[in-house]
Amino acid sequence: MDESVHQHKFTLTEDQMPTQWYNIIPDLPSPPPPALHPGTLQPAGPEDFLPLFPMDLILQEVSQDSYIDIPGAVLDIYRQWRPSPLFRAHRLEKLLGTPAKIYYKFEGQSPAGSHKTNTSVPQAYYNAIAGVKKLTTETGAGQWGTALSFATALFGLECEVWQVGASYDAKPYRRLMMEVYGAKVHRSPSNLTAAGRAFYDVNPNHPGSLGIAISEAVEVAAQDPEIRYALGSVLNHVLMHQTIIGEEALLQMQMAGDTPTHIVGCTGGGSNFGGLSFPFLREKMAGKMDPKIIAVEPESCPSLTKGVYAYDFGDTAGMTPLMKMHTLGRNFVPDPIHAGGLRYHGMAPLISHIYELGLMEAIAVPQTECFEAAIKFARTEGIVPAPEPTHAIAAAIRQALVAKETGEETVILTALCGHGHFDLAAYEEFLGGRMKDENADDSRFAESIDEVKAFPINN
Amino acid sequence: MDESVHQHKFTLTEDQMPTQWYNIIPDLPSPPPPALHPGTLQPAGPEDFLPLFPMDLILQEVSQDSYIDIPGAVLDIYRQWRPSPLFRAHRLEKLLGTPAKIYYKFEGQSPAGSHKTNTSVPQAYYNAIAGVKKLTTETGAGQWGTALSFATALFGLECEVWQVGASYDAKPYRRLMMEVYGAKVHRSPSNLTAAGRAFYDVNPNHPGSLGIAISEAVEVAAQDPEIRYALGSVLNHVLMHQTIIGEEALLQMQMAGDTPTHIVGCTGGGSNFGGLSFPFLREKMAGKMDPKIIAVEPESCPSLTKGVYAYDFGDTAGMTPLMKMHTLGRNFVPDPIHAGGLRYHGMAPLISHIYELGLMEAIAVPQTECFEAAIKFARTEGIVPAPEPTHAIAAAIRQALVAKETGEETVILTALCGHGHFDLAAYEEFLGGRMKDENADDSRFAESIDEVKAFPINN
Repeated sequence: MDESVHQHKFTLTEDQMPTQWYNIIPDLPSPPPPALHPGTLQPAGPEDFLPLFPMDLILQEVSQDSYIDIPGAVLDIYRQWRPSPLFRAHRLEKLLGTPAKIYYKFEGQSPAGSHKTNTSVPQAYYNAIAGVKKLTTETGAGQWGTALSFATALFGLECEVWQVGASYDAKPYRRLMMEVYGAKVHRSPSNLTAAGRAFYDVNPNHPGSLGIAISEAVEVAAQDPEIRYALGSVLNHVLMHQTIIGEEALLQMQMAGDTPTHIVGCTGGGSNFGGLSFPFLREKMAGKMDPKIIAVEPESCPSLTKGVYAYDFGDTAGMTPLMKMHTLGRNFVPDPIHAGGLRYHGMAPLISHIYELGLMEAIAVPQTECFEAAIKFARTEGIVPAPEPTHAIAAAIRQALVAKETGEETVILTALCGHGHFDLAAYEEFLGGRMKDENADDSRFAESIDEVKAFPINN
Repeated sequence: MDESVHQHKFTLTEDQMPTQWYNIIPDLPSPPPPALHPGTLQPAGPEDFLPLFPMDLILQEVSQDSYIDIPGAVLDIYRQWRPSPLFRAHRLEKLLGTPAKIYYKFEGQSPAGSHKTNTSVPQAYYNAIAGVKKLTTETGAGQWGTALSFATALFGLECEVWQVGASYDAKPYRRLMMEVYGAKVHRSPSNLTAAGRAFYDVNPNHPGSLGIAISEAVEVAAQDPEIRYALGSVLNHVLMHQTIIGEEALLQMQMAGDTPTHIVGCTGGGSNFGGLSFPFLREKMAGKMDPKIIAVEPESCPSLTKGVYAYDFGDTAGMTPLMKMHTLGRNFVPDPIHAGGLRYHGMAPLISHIYELGLMEAIAVPQTECFEAAIKFARTEGIVPAPEPTHAIAAAIRQALVAKETGEETVILTALCGHGHFDLAAYEEFLGGRMKDENADDSRFAESIDEVKAFPINN
């Protein structure tokens, strides 16, 4: 029995919690291409976003300030679970027999169970002070819908969520968690919107997709000035709200006395990955450290590694502005892997731009490797990860095993962005030997990518 | 929008984490009556417990030392989630319009989701250093089985859990969580033990009870010297391991600058309640403060408020030593309320003794009042409580509303011992208007109490 005490957890005091979000855009060698109005194809101005978002968030979306103060009412709520802990995975390292050091920043202690509260709280706040009465949104895995339901409850807003049909059917507890917070949850496609009825009328049991659910939530918000829409990833302001993760992790890595050589994070829309990595990327661009920054996506939905970098819509119905991003095409429907939060056809325009600049890398990992990694992680570190961060854990383990071969000094930092308490059916499938890897044949998205390439704006 | 920053969270540094457990027994005006050997009816000696527990835990069970050092390897693991936060429920207070201050100590951030890891980790540790290969246990709500599965995984022990049949059927995610940690889970009553077959052979779908599940786990452990049994509540050493909750809370209440006038905790076996209240009871007995200490039990299973104080068995088959406790009789089967962890026929002998000494009070609360309180709590404080601590929250709200009437200066401290992520079906029943209060007619346990009274030792 090893009686020696290792330091597993690096904790900041509340006084050390960052009080500003970091906006990486002014620090980049070039700005990301602008979003375009879908009608005029001209750069979208703040007024184009007003039917969907309050002005404070629109100004954050296009801000050129490097730092933006976090409002007191938001800090007040953040402090319930922030600063979040950074852990050193001593027991996992021992199991792997690796000389690599593995650190993970854990966001699963937020009441809603994931990093998504870092942006749901400010989004609810800015809408509340703008006099908005109700927020609409979509949710795939359910983490975002839960986080927004939590935040709207605290600020006295109503909340209406379109949950992707397949997720609604498979994860009743996710829906219930939102309902406990007081939200109204609809199975998407629903018969409540024109965008939904286009699919619902053909098949009321349609499994849905994030793209369809976004269309439904956007449609309802756009029709009523007292209703606005909230998005849980993809947009600049959402990624910026998440930078509190990386700012804290920077301080905590200093406490630990280590500098990361590899930063790995899972990427669906990109907010968790951006939140963790942008503050480190700032340090890298300033020459203060040189970590490899690696986005990890699922084989089922490899927008960065296999997508085209082009203008595409954020939703299926084509109601959002056109955004230049890595995309598999708005009509691509990924295999139904358990990591619902990674099944988005596009990638955050900001992440896409940074990837094009060569400031980061990307890999795709198959599902069974992720769950194998998750079981190792749960049985050593004790935390059962959500399916999304299992991708980051799998990539961290790959890197740790490389270090075991080469002996290269390796310090891995990853983000464990949420717990898997509502995803245990996925673990059952894995433990029962019934989990399959997704189709990795590129032909599956050839058609939907061709559609995107055919847009006049992309020619 | 209220921009002012309230302090919601009182956080200790890791250096401030207590390094000793508190044993209240030497400080009591009289010692609790001893456990008796079921055959000889003589006080059970350490050797009587050896087939079930390692010597280190037996010595803790009968210790007269006021403080016992927490081993380094246990502290090492505790530090993953300890010191646990103490929260001031500002938003709940505002909703209630009460002048009372409400504080809650939150244990749900442990990897297994409840306070049970405070004892599962040391129990696994002491068994591991004693060379034990496997631990058996029972679980009702699933919190304890999950906590022991987590702890055994870390110490390389096998774990076999008998889960109460009704819970096994209703909470597949609970079982899965234990399996993710590597435990083997059986539906109880099973056909693997004589104790189980007595029920299984009559009805393979028997809903089971904690008493039956304990009998099964004890039977398997007693037959093999490499297997031991672990209990998640009731015993002295288990309550002692939980005192780290109260020791931390004492320091945190000092940080907050308040002294509790009321301490309320839910009681099933008594470990959460004892863990929170014993350090405060020490201060009360020393004349340093004078809180009312109130145990909250469910109407379905009111062992303190309606049970008899007598010698009874801890399990249904009568395999454990006889313990003097408040009991509804080992054959009493409580209504199937959702708070499975509170459905135990007896109460910890130590809590029972302290209750008899008049050092604490007890009340019973009906189920729907608990869930109504839980919804208020979730929508203000953001945390969805397990069904067990909803009882404590309901009692805290009762007290806060009394303060609103009387204006009496009131500082309530309660323990939120676990999250309800695996209990959302109970919330669905409540939100859907289908939840019923339990039968509160005393006749339901008249027979099982008469059985206990008829034991020769009780005459």
